Amino acid sequence: MKDVAIIMGSISDLSTMQNTIDTLEELKVGYEVHVISAHRMPQEMINFGKTAAYKGNKVIIAGAGGAAHLPGMLAATTDLPVIGVPVQSKALNGMDSLLSIVQMPGGVPVATMAIGKAGAINAALMATRICALSNSTYLETLSEYQHKMHDKSVESGKQFE
Amino acid sequence: MKDVAIIMGSISDLSTMQNTIDTLEELKVGYEVHVISAHRMPQEMINFGKTAAYKGNKVIIAGAGGAAHLPGMLAATTDLPVIGVPVQSKALNGMDSLLSIVQMPGGVPVATMAIGKAGAINAALMATRICALSNSTYLETLSEYQHKMHDKSVESGKQFE
Amino acid sequence: MKDVAIIMGSISDLSTMQNTIDTLEELKVGYEVHVISAHRMPQEMINFGKTAAYKGNKVIIAGAGGAAHLPGMLAATTDLPVIGVPVQSKALNGMDSLLSIVQMPGGVPVATMAIGKAGAINAALMATRICALSNSTYLETLSEYQHKMHDKSVESGKQFE
Amino acid sequence: MKDVAIIMGSISDLSTMQNTIDTLEELKVGYEVHVISAHRMPQEMINFGKTAAYKGNKVIIAGAGGAAHLPGMLAATTDLPVIGVPVQSKALNGMDSLLSIVQMPGGVPVATMAIGKAGAINAALMATRICALSNSTYLETLSEYQHKMHDKSVESGKQFE
Amino acid sequence: MKDVAIIMGSISDLSTMQNTIDTLEELKVGYEVHVISAHRMPQEMINFGKTAAYKGNKVIIAGAGGAAHLPGMLAATTDLPVIGVPVQSKALNGMDSLLSIVQMPGGVPVATMAIGKAGAINAALMATRICALSNSTYLETLSEYQHKMHDKSVESGKQFE
Amino acid sequence: MKDVAIIMGSISDLSTMQNTIDTLEELKVGYEVHVISAHRMPQEMINFGKTAAYKGNKVIIAGAGGAAHLPGMLAATTDLPVIGVPVQSKALNGMDSLLSIVQMPGGVPVATMAIGKAGAINAALMATRICALSNSTYLETLSEYQHKMHDKSVESGKQFE
Amino acid sequence: MKDVAIIMGSISDLSTMQNTIDTLEELKVGYEVHVISAHRMPQEMINFGKTAAYKGNKVIIAGAGGAAHLPGMLAATTDLPVIGVPVQSKALNGMDSLLSIVQMPGGVPVATMAIGKAGAINAALMATRICALSNSTYLETLSEYQHKMHDKSVESGKQFE
Amino acid sequence: MKDVAIIMGSISDLSTMQNTIDTLEELKVGYEVHVISAHRMPQEMINFGKTAAYKGNKVIIAGAGGAAHLPGMLAATTDLPVIGVPVQSKALNGMDSLLSIVQMPGGVPVATMAIGKAGAINAALMATRICALSNSTYLETLSEYQHKMHDKSVESGKQFE
Repeated sequence: MKDVAIIMGSISDLSTMQNTIDTLEELKVGYEVHVISAHRMPQEMINFGKTAAYKGNKVIIAGAGGAAHLPGMLAATTDLPVIGVPVQSKALNGMDSLLSIVQMPGGVPVATMAIGKAGAINAALMATRICALSNSTYLETLSEYQHKMHDKSVESGKQFE
Repeated sequence: MKDVAIIMGSISDLSTMQNTIDTLEELKVGYEVHVISAHRMPQEMINFGKTAAYKGNKVIIAGAGGAAHLPGMLAATTDLPVIGVPVQSKALNGMDSLLSIVQMPGGVPVATMAIGKAGAINAALMATRICALSNSTYLETLSEYQHKMHDKSVESGKQFE
Repeated sequence: MKDVAIIMGSISDLSTMQNTIDTLEELKVGYEVHVISAHRMPQEMINFGKTAAYKGNKVIIAGAGGAAHLPGMLAATTDLPVIGVPVQSKALNGMDSLLSIVQMPGGVPVATMAIGKAGAINAALMATRICALSNSTYLETLSEYQHKMHDKSVESGKQFE
Repeated sequence: MKDVAIIMGSISDLSTMQNTIDTLEELKVGYEVHVISAHRMPQEMINFGKTAAYKGNKVIIAGAGGAAHLPGMLAATTDLPVIGVPVQSKALNGMDSLLSIVQMPGGVPVATMAIGKAGAINAALMATRICALSNSTYLETLSEYQHKMHDKSVESGKQFE
Repeated sequence: MKDVAIIMGSISDLSTMQNTIDTLEELKVGYEVHVISAHRMPQEMINFGKTAAYKGNKVIIAGAGGAAHLPGMLAATTDLPVIGVPVQSKALNGMDSLLSIVQMPGGVPVATMAIGKAGAINAALMATRICALSNSTYLETLSEYQHKMHDKSVESGKQFE
Repeated sequence: MKDVAIIMGSISDLSTMQNTIDTLEELKVGYEVHVISAHRMPQEMINFGKTAAYKGNKVIIAGAGGAAHLPGMLAATTDLPVIGVPVQSKALNGMDSLLSIVQMPGGVPVATMAIGKAGAINAALMATRICALSNSTYLETLSEYQHKMHDKSVESGKQFE
Repeated sequence: MKDVAIIMGSISDLSTMQNTIDTLEELKVGYEVHVISAHRMPQEMINFGKTAAYKGNKVIIAGAGGAAHLPGMLAATTDLPVIGVPVQSKALNGMDSLLSIVQMPGGVPVATMAIGKAGAINAALMATRICALSNSTYLETLSEYQHKMHDKSVESGKQFE
Repeated sequence: MKDVAIIMGSISDLSTMQNTIDTLEELKVGYEVHVISAHRMPQEMINFGKTAAYKGNKVIIAGAGGAAHLPGMLAATTDLPVIGVPVQSKALNGMDSLLSIVQMPGGVPVATMAIGKAGAINAALMATRICALSNSTYLETLSEYQHKMHDKSVESGKQFE
């Protein structure tokens, strides 16, 4: 009955997706983590998508790199909002991951985040914003998070005064 | 008290964003439409972001092209989920719009859709998936929509049998 | 018991994939055609991949555009050689289709062709080259095709002599 | 009453923007430095833009990376010339920063410099060229700078004679 | 004694640069227009750069496409601020023009605008912002221009209320 | 009488193509290795293409980087299926290698794989899938390989349960 | 005994390469034209390269599009200077043609021109510059050509005086 | 009276252009080296272009990075063949250098080489091919060079036999 399910296409995506985990921890949002490869475990992937809502997940975050089919295929098998994180690839720096995730055809939406670490952090925040619509305690944690960011930015500029 | 607020940066974005409007109509989701330019109406933009939640909006959809700052700036001023639609630009075909919307820094998420018409349709569907988490009537309309798409795809292939 | 199965993700890909059909006709190779959307018909897609070999297909040709997941997902569900044709997309001219098809992770190969018409023709030729390994009548048709191309090229240059 | 205001979107941009500071020091142009994040401090950003001219600034230099909204948003809130420096981003090497800054819609200009260090140096020189139009002492420092560059180039080639 | 000199590399750039002319007309800023090709008239180009300040120009706007060397070479021969407008090229849509203009080495700044029409309009506005620092009548015209833009944006959205 | 011929354009491509060798070893498929530069040994290249089928090769795998002409030129001189591996180049990260290999004109197909290591692994798998059509022992090794991959993926995710 | 041999990979390249022909006509340089496809006529291509010098050609101009292997393969079979013209391709606008021609490995140079018409004109001029080193009558025609260009540029700007 | 003049835009280009020097040494072609910045020494650059032919140079090789204006501007001031070497830039890996050099307008040709080291080597070989048209001793050195390359390639593949 975790609000957020984090799926990564390969354990090698963990260094990026750890940022999602850490941010959800900081925001005190419940989550579960799975490795489900679209290409190596296609049937498990489809089963996960089909049952996620019934298990109680509210949002799915999927991280993948290269020809990143995981977020789009999950979005094709569930009605839950799916957030895609393009993992930075070796040769093309994640431009392939980004286009494979974001250029979805009309009918099957994936909420695409930035390439790499920033995108992984923002996936957690986007999931929390979505969950906060029906759980107002999240509004407070989001507001705190935003204030902390704001104050840290302000603080960092004080050296120039 | 509309669930979805659609903001476009310029009236010239309407031919793209009309697809969002049409899809929300088809899904019977309440929406309102505004033209708020990040660059020509910056204070109105910030005011809109700050008050959207209080007015009862649940999701903001922002479409913009070129150096598309509207979705990111709205996301910076609200805790609501913001969905960004990169409008296809003239010289660079929307690659500039896409990167300006999706490459957000950690802390301020924008749920980015595909460039152009497909992205505009999907923005409506993503908004509905989000709203459906707290309004189960939307689940039915989503399910109907998905079935219609499925059947249309199946139908279109029958000519080859 | 057709040697080649042609799958397109959407009926809108037909204008491109017709070139595959025409070339297989010219080469007298047996084929069947299906519309199976990875995103709108995910379960049918997986079922197709799982059963293609048992039905007697030897090669699968899959054409798709944008976030083109069809060729890679079919390759994940069969041991047959899968040939991918990137259909030219509207905003990004097929660069998204190409990267979504070609940048597959190690373990699941897709034989990627050029974007658009040339790629669709070559998909038919590649399928025929593969089938010719166990069916020598195809070798003759291939050889004829190559000679015709050669002679047409030579002929086209005669005006300059 | 400093001629030039240097704004960076994040303290992490300092390693790039230090080149602007150093060049203004060398040119003996007065400047002030601030950290104002478009996304974490939107209201402060707008306030800064609105009051810069009244405080006596003549030129604003804004450095930012990724979905770099700072220069364009400042340009939207002031009539002063705004110079944008695209900071080199991690995944996309600053191509995202460049396009987010330079592809402004008609009506709100940003004077965009090269990505990274060269752009940061040139932002200082462009600001000085602008200020020199109404302060002829800057003409001399510019002329000296140019001569030094020229002579250093000439000198560096002497080893080949 | 015109404040702004508009130089285009080829008469074929006029359809783009006419937007600069029209905007300066609207802003009532004095200007002169020349065709000076960096590659076909290199000595005239250098002479123009060397004498522009003495003739009374305050800002130079240079528009060019492809391997666009004109803005950078002018910036190398004058101390005046030089604004570059990348004209949209045929094959590469102006990406070559943009990079040839913006990626200047440290020491010689070019204030680069967006590709094509929007950039040509903004070149005029940037020139006016610069001239306004020493000519306050321009501040009024700029302010009027901005208000007109603002009101036109607001007006265009009224149809949705 | 080896099933697969691996050709690399330069010995510097070996670090990439070693992945092809290793994967064929693991799959127990017979192979031979050659260095044949399209540009330094053009006549040998053509001779190789012309005689490969007669020598008993069934599939040719060609790896090359930059202006990678080897796979396409081999495909022009044989009727065997040719698989191309774009080796990651220094300046452009293999985008030049990819486009030089994949964008073949209609008539001469090259089965293009991903840039670098993943592509080199997949070239071996694609060759094996092709050979398996007429050699069912390969079907078993392929199936084993796929199961190993699947189980390794599943295993790697167990830490999160 | 023509100084320049123009080779195009396909008769469909003629609309581009006609610009080379017209410019050589204008410069009164002797030339011959051939259609030789690298992929459809590989042996003829190599034979052409091997015999061009003996037949009296001094420069080879090769135009091709997509995976454009013709210029590089000709350069591999002759010691004559080879000039490459990237023909604008359909999907990728000639970026594939450009990279396939220009990114040659060390050892085999191709003098690459701009994509499309401008490149085709310049190929003729570059060939003439090369031939002029040993034929001073070409120096005069080149000088005339340059003067005509110069004067035409000057003339085109007179309307603004 | 050196056959080849090597010009680099900045001493920082030497690590690339040293490959040109080394190759000319190996080919025993006479050369001279200069540092002439298009942007810091524009008048010297034009003077060099105007006098190179009279001094006895036959070919000019120009290496530059970023907004690389040197090769094109030299080509605009001489009738000698000019060869351009795009030096790999920091942020954009030399794509900016390449486009700034190769995308010349019709009328002023630059013989563009590959980005970086391979291009620098090939610039020397292209210059030698050009000089060999009127100096047959170069034909021998070129032939030797080619044979050495060929034999080295053959040798490197022997380990696999």
